[in-house]
Amino acid sequence: MKGKGRNANSMGKRVMDRLDELAQISESPGMLTRRFLTPAHARAMDQVGAWMREAGLQVRVDPIANVIGRLEGRRPGAPAILIGSHIDTVIDAGKYDGNLGVVAGIEAAAALASVPDKLEHAVEVIAFGDEEGVRFPSHLLSSRSLTGAVRARDLDVVDADGISVKAALGGLGLPDGLAACKRADKDIAAYIEVHIEQGPVLQAKRAALAAVTAINGAARMRVRVEGIAGHAGTVPMALRQDALAAAAEMVVAVEEIGREGGDKLVATVGRTDVRPNAVNVVPGEVHFTIDVRSPSDAIRMAAQKKIATALHKIGKKRQVRVTAETYYEMPATKMDDRIVAAVSAGIAAVGQKPIMLASGAGHDAMAIAPKWPAAMMFVRCTDGISHNPAEHITRDDSDLAVRALIAAIRHLDATL
Amino acid sequence: MKGKGRNANSMGKRVMDRLDELAQISESPGMLTRRFLTPAHARAMDQVGAWMREAGLQVRVDPIANVIGRLEGRRPGAPAILIGSHIDTVIDAGKYDGNLGVVAGIEAAAALASVPDKLEHAVEVIAFGDEEGVRFPSHLLSSRSLTGAVRARDLDVVDADGISVKAALGGLGLPDGLAACKRADKDIAAYIEVHIEQGPVLQAKRAALAAVTAINGAARMRVRVEGIAGHAGTVPMALRQDALAAAAEMVVAVEEIGREGGDKLVATVGRTDVRPNAVNVVPGEVHFTIDVRSPSDAIRMAAQKKIATALHKIGKKRQVRVTAETYYEMPATKMDDRIVAAVSAGIAAVGQKPIMLASGAGHDAMAIAPKWPAAMMFVRCTDGISHNPAEHITRDDSDLAVRALIAAIRHLDATL
Repeated sequence: MKGKGRNANSMGKRVMDRLDELAQISESPGMLTRRFLTPAHARAMDQVGAWMREAGLQVRVDPIANVIGRLEGRRPGAPAILIGSHIDTVIDAGKYDGNLGVVAGIEAAAALASVPDKLEHAVEVIAFGDEEGVRFPSHLLSSRSLTGAVRARDLDVVDADGISVKAALGGLGLPDGLAACKRADKDIAAYIEVHIEQGPVLQAKRAALAAVTAINGAARMRVRVEGIAGHAGTVPMALRQDALAAAAEMVVAVEEIGREGGDKLVATVGRTDVRPNAVNVVPGEVHFTIDVRSPSDAIRMAAQKKIATALHKIGKKRQVRVTAETYYEMPATKMDDRIVAAVSAGIAAVGQKPIMLASGAGHDAMAIAPKWPAAMMFVRCTDGISHNPAEHITRDDSDLAVRALIAAIRHLDATL
Repeated sequence: MKGKGRNANSMGKRVMDRLDELAQISESPGMLTRRFLTPAHARAMDQVGAWMREAGLQVRVDPIANVIGRLEGRRPGAPAILIGSHIDTVIDAGKYDGNLGVVAGIEAAAALASVPDKLEHAVEVIAFGDEEGVRFPSHLLSSRSLTGAVRARDLDVVDADGISVKAALGGLGLPDGLAACKRADKDIAAYIEVHIEQGPVLQAKRAALAAVTAINGAARMRVRVEGIAGHAGTVPMALRQDALAAAAEMVVAVEEIGREGGDKLVATVGRTDVRPNAVNVVPGEVHFTIDVRSPSDAIRMAAQKKIATALHKIGKKRQVRVTAETYYEMPATKMDDRIVAAVSAGIAAVGQKPIMLASGAGHDAMAIAPKWPAAMMFVRCTDGISHNPAEHITRDDSDLAVRALIAAIRHLDATL
């Protein structure tokens, strides 16, 4: 996308420059690591707050460390169109995951603030802090606190140093007050989250942007295959109960079941541990994990059932003992049709083909969607690489994303 | 095998009692560990020497710490029928691996010494010390020294504490002198090694003993499969280059090729390392090993070629990069037909069906066979378990083994 005019180019450039600047705020020199409620997170909150103020927003920090910038509409106190994502990162992260949605939101709000005609709705930009779940054994505390889903005892979980979320919030000088984080139903009209795709689909489709229709549900299984370990030289093939050969057949079966689901299913064996794992020993035991995701809970659950059947059939045939346990299960989150339509209209408004995608990864939008109409916009990322310093998006795509977001906000403002 | 008469029963009992006694001589209390040239090995040498003297043998220790007991034949200085195995063990070993062959050899020599009619040949019993290769990065130094295959610099290899074989031999008070270990061609007429099978075949065939026809050749390969790591939720099945799914298909192919070789081939994937090995990441790289063994070098090499072809075909189909390297290759050692026939005749002489087996594991007989006619006798071990404290043989089988060994020695004495 070339030659989009002066204003557009400058928005894309500023977003990219700010993402580079934000990436300098890290716990570790030489790489980007910014975990929830660390000093680096606090410094990023300050920086984001400064940009919000510069954009003309009223800024506050709520008691769970969300930075919120508000642009009033025509009528003060009107319901807000909320634009958000997170500014915490994984360890040795890329610059775009989460941060893009916050910086793009600020850029869009700045553009809306800079013109004389106000919107009917307020626009709020929010920077969440607990999306990656790297520091605490917690999940989406920041975004879930808006709906009132966080309980006081959820803040008692501790990090590796024994510091609780509650203590870490106090350490940043924030007051107690989950109740003050909770937003009234009428405060928020809609939620849009701009995020890098973290997958290769847009690149494969040669498209810059997508409207996200659902966040996939996921299940995780642990499988243990117990055969009989033996000497690789002395146990004839016909007398073996090789746990690895059995597990290998299972891995192929899991992949095949995943493939049968087309673009509505993924199934992955990501972790495999072989015992005793020696060149001259027939493996006696293998543990592996299966991750299954789908935008449709029915499809996912059918696949889980099919996988369990395949595992036990292979185990029986090979006389190895199979134990499979589902240890995590999260249903799919459907995005709101009206907000999806607005995002889609925004994408079309900047001359792009509005691709529809389900998200394979989890996002803050999952926490918001149960209470307010929500949707996401995905931005193409190079080779689908994410959670890695090589994570990359283009300036042109970031520019398209901001302009599509502005168009989506205007569309919602006119139609909600 | 019950009611074999008083003499026979007492031989089996003494062998088992002595193996229990020998198993008490260990580096570590509570488990059997007896590595080459450790104080435990030296104490075991003393014990074995004492039993040899008690059996009426002339005992000497050669400069590489082999304990040798000789029973002269009718004519002093006649070529010897050599009966041997090793008294070093792996860490946390069973009682029978190696030690059985030495104790059974002493028992057979004692029986031959106890009757007035002497053999034409001498009988020598030898206790080797470096078969397991656990302490030093060496291989069969003890048995190879008899053929002159060990060079002075082979004794310079060091253990984890930096102690060389040469220094450790000096520490036991042994003189320098590889030349004195080497035996003249005419000194030895034949070699027989009694050893536990270390596999499940005899148990499956409900047979106590086997004559070993060959020690399998072996090759080991390292395989690296490079795909592209990705997010388990966001990369559609159709866009994946999953290194683990590819490796799994390869593991199944290796097993299939092994099976096609019937009882003439084994192929094992024993070690598998997956990267990054996380539940929510499509594996980007997998390393695994392949161990291929056969009594026929032609069959083994054809299998290696077939495996390499299968790996690359799977790699090509799945667009993953495959690198396979053969890093170890040892040809098969054929046992001598006349000695195999004698062992077989010995087994038949005690009323047992003479099973013919190839050995999947390496043994001292591999070192002897290039210079003197050699064969082995395998003894059934429970469930094929070896290199493990659960290693077990029955008293009845040990009794049969000693009596079959005596018959085989007499057969050789009459026919060589």
